[in-house]
Amino acid sequence: MTDTAHRAPDAAIEAAMRRALAIAVQGPATGANPQVGCVLLDARGEQVAEGWHRGAGTPHAEADALSQVSDASGLTAVVTLEPCNHTGRTGPCAEALIAAGVARVVYAVADPGEVEGGGADRLRAAGVEVSGGVLADEAEEFLHPWLTSVRLGRPFVTVKWGSTLDGRAAAADGTSQWITGAASRQRVHEQRAAHDAIAVGTGTVLADDPSLTARGDGGELLPTQPIPVVFGERPAPADAALRQHPAGLIELGHRDIPRALDELYARGIRRLYVEGGPTLASAFIQAGLVDEYLIYLAPMLLGGPKTAIGDLGIGTIHDARHLSIHRIETLGDDILVVARPAKEQ
Amino acid sequence: MTDTAHRAPDAAIEAAMRRALAIAVQGPATGANPQVGCVLLDARGEQVAEGWHRGAGTPHAEADALSQVSDASGLTAVVTLEPCNHTGRTGPCAEALIAAGVARVVYAVADPGEVEGGGADRLRAAGVEVSGGVLADEAEEFLHPWLTSVRLGRPFVTVKWGSTLDGRAAAADGTSQWITGAASRQRVHEQRAAHDAIAVGTGTVLADDPSLTARGDGGELLPTQPIPVVFGERPAPADAALRQHPAGLIELGHRDIPRALDELYARGIRRLYVEGGPTLASAFIQAGLVDEYLIYLAPMLLGGPKTAIGDLGIGTIHDARHLSIHRIETLGDDILVVARPAKEQ
Repeated sequence: MTDTAHRAPDAAIEAAMRRALAIAVQGPATGANPQVGCVLLDARGEQVAEGWHRGAGTPHAEADALSQVSDASGLTAVVTLEPCNHTGRTGPCAEALIAAGVARVVYAVADPGEVEGGGADRLRAAGVEVSGGVLADEAEEFLHPWLTSVRLGRPFVTVKWGSTLDGRAAAADGTSQWITGAASRQRVHEQRAAHDAIAVGTGTVLADDPSLTARGDGGELLPTQPIPVVFGERPAPADAALRQHPAGLIELGHRDIPRALDELYARGIRRLYVEGGPTLASAFIQAGLVDEYLIYLAPMLLGGPKTAIGDLGIGTIHDARHLSIHRIETLGDDILVVARPAKEQ
Repeated sequence: MTDTAHRAPDAAIEAAMRRALAIAVQGPATGANPQVGCVLLDARGEQVAEGWHRGAGTPHAEADALSQVSDASGLTAVVTLEPCNHTGRTGPCAEALIAAGVARVVYAVADPGEVEGGGADRLRAAGVEVSGGVLADEAEEFLHPWLTSVRLGRPFVTVKWGSTLDGRAAAADGTSQWITGAASRQRVHEQRAAHDAIAVGTGTVLADDPSLTARGDGGELLPTQPIPVVFGERPAPADAALRQHPAGLIELGHRDIPRALDELYARGIRRLYVEGGPTLASAFIQAGLVDEYLIYLAPMLLGGPKTAIGDLGIGTIHDARHLSIHRIETLGDDILVVARPAKEQ
């Protein structure tokens, strides 16, 4: 099956990988499973079938693509993530590809999972030609939160805050409606829907009684709802809006961030959106447990004591937390800065 | 001289105004006089001559252009600013245009000066055809600081600060070298050179002993140096670096901002660059006397008490100072936000 005279050309492989990445997006961005796409090519490089993963419990992308063809023998499978080697709610994709007689597997990035990984080795042992790294940068970026989560064994942590251009989250009297504009607030709802859970401190629950639902611009609930997670010892009040949240409610009963991340990862949570308040956001930053920063800057100055970020335990400039700007966007009159921890740290 | 059969076509007028704006830039951006360009057209719309103003005491743009031709009778003068009607170190341009026999004058923006304005009326009284408003928006933006200054009768005030993305100008121990990067620091030097004066508080003079010169990236002095102005009662120390400043030193002996602006305007200062520290910048903001904000945001978080902007006397969100984002730029790893007071204020 490794007859290289019948290999799909490199250009066709790369085009198929682009297609696989494009269709992978149709799968759910949240949940324990990654978004994966798969394209099957014949020896001339023509596309024969394609598939993508539609969420936990449904066929993986490879199985979805294989189900479209009666005979896959000799085909090349182009898949965005190394095929899994693990029996979960569905069987291992490596075995399915071997059983179908696929001659060659090309993937973009290796599966970092401890139990899911190893698919490439299993395929090679069965005589399938395997190579990785095609459009690896694009796939790495596309799967960045999921890959980071699985590699670190904890949820990918996004910390979001909104502030004035001078770093304030509220006026001296605590009023803050509205600092950021409608476009920013709508984007926050979309970001909530792209995470498995929202972290909030008990102080914010008691002070603001937020609903923490993900809503559309008409106020309607979005199809995906992140589960709210309350950090802190105190229980949410019996009449708290959070208790009506459609995704349920997790009350940690503590504010130990590493322990909380372990607990949430064990529950299948791969993306955590930290909304605040300032104390909780600052605690995540101080702990060095932030993977992405979403900083909304409103064209406004307030001065005074109510900073969006409080104390970070940083005494001198050499201990500053360095970020790397990933993207700058204007949203209505606001500026959204997307940043990640700087690589050198 | 108002024979409209011999008028330069509209398209030629607009093209000439673009040229006049382009050559005006060659004049000095600082000083009491504006940057002005002038293009002379014949009746077919062909350019006959051009001129621009090279700084106080030298011919105005109109005189410079007229000096290029032996006979200007019947020509159209296209000039970025309404010709002046005032005898200063040079004679009034309106009279010069009349004496030269110019048939028509087209300008972009009116001269707001109390003594310099009125040139259009003087020209009309002499039978010259006059119209304004051609490329008015471009000229307004080009001359924005000078026009604002003359209209308000005080220097155009630019407030600059650098901070982390969470609004801090220093770590808890006061260390701040370097929050912004080399590209931002070089831009600050260029901005200093584009202002007549730099405002600094006595606290900053005593704490940092800044030189406040405008330097190139090799450390050399730039051709234009703003004069440092010390706000506060205390004199700068005898050995302060400021006392070696090539442009001299103004010690106000007070920190009354409106009074200071009156004094500086009377000395011909049209553009003031407020560099800090936080107390002085915050005082200008609180006084509502800022025309442009230059906010350098470094990809860094510090937390803690050393905010770039202190108290602004704002108690509640409805009193927030609203800005309008004029431009966002990336400078090395930093973000430069250029903002102005929001129009509705």
